[in-house]
Amino acid sequence: MLPHEASSPTPRDLAGRQAAAHRRLESGHQLWLATGSDGLGAHLIPVAFVWDGSALITATFAHSRTVHNVRAHPRARVAVGTTADVIMIDTSSSLIDVAELDAKITERYAVVSTDPRNAPEGTFVYLRLQPRRIQVWNGLHEFAGRTVMAGGRWLDAPID
Amino acid sequence: MLPHEASSPTPRDLAGRQAAAHRRLESGHQLWLATGSDGLGAHLIPVAFVWDGSALITATFAHSRTVHNVRAHPRARVAVGTTADVIMIDTSSSLIDVAELDAKITERYAVVSTDPRNAPEGTFVYLRLQPRRIQVWNGLHEFAGRTVMAGGRWLDAPID
Repeated sequence: MLPHEASSPTPRDLAGRQAAAHRRLESGHQLWLATGSDGLGAHLIPVAFVWDGSALITATFAHSRTVHNVRAHPRARVAVGTTADVIMIDTSSSLIDVAELDAKITERYAVVSTDPRNAPEGTFVYLRLQPRRIQVWNGLHEFAGRTVMAGGRWLDAPID
Repeated sequence: MLPHEASSPTPRDLAGRQAAAHRRLESGHQLWLATGSDGLGAHLIPVAFVWDGSALITATFAHSRTVHNVRAHPRARVAVGTTADVIMIDTSSSLIDVAELDAKITERYAVVSTDPRNAPEGTFVYLRLQPRRIQVWNGLHEFAGRTVMAGGRWLDAPID
């Protein structure tokens, strides 16, 4: 919907936005992953994910800009959804070994992505993206009240 | 489409992918904009855009992480499309004054976004994102041959 077509929709309340975030996290399987490191600016990739109830699990090529950035600057910014209806997540990011992952998670991930376990060892690495802050908005009218998680905790009341 | 549902689609050739890029640039009006600067890692926002034939024109809040990053590190990474069907663009980014923009461009931008010219002076700044490299792919099977522009020039033959 373009701005001049909108009929001043009512912004969702905190509970509604948290529910939307949970839905997107539990049912989605692709996200945008932005990482950066000193001197290199930002990198951005689309990648598959699964949600394990408290963090996003994904995987990418071991010798990639993304993995280089996560090693150097373990904070990644993630978008789930669309440009018009976004769940924006600031995460603490870390590399994890497949042995650290619950088999159910690696199985779920293999459904939504090329299975990293099928490639020669060392081709892919898994990443754990732990949300610190989550913001939910679907237009300029929802900028206020968009923060639904802060400091890693789902909020009880709006803070913005 | 999930990986196990795909029926080994044929990768598009260079001309097909360049045509897809042109279509998305000319008809799209929202993109993902990733910027970074030293010490801050990556920032990511969804934002409206118009294509002026050679660059993406967008605008955002003047006192924003994005603008800070562009000033510090004038390279932005842009995604147009969806995670499953992406036009990925590495750009040289710069801040521009509304006076530098053709009136047709600012008018077209005002159709797809809140009009920066209607806000108090200094609220928004326009950005020019000049493509240096463009990559087009809609799945792992299209990783080869995904570069369609390099060094700011549309390619005559595949390079990857």
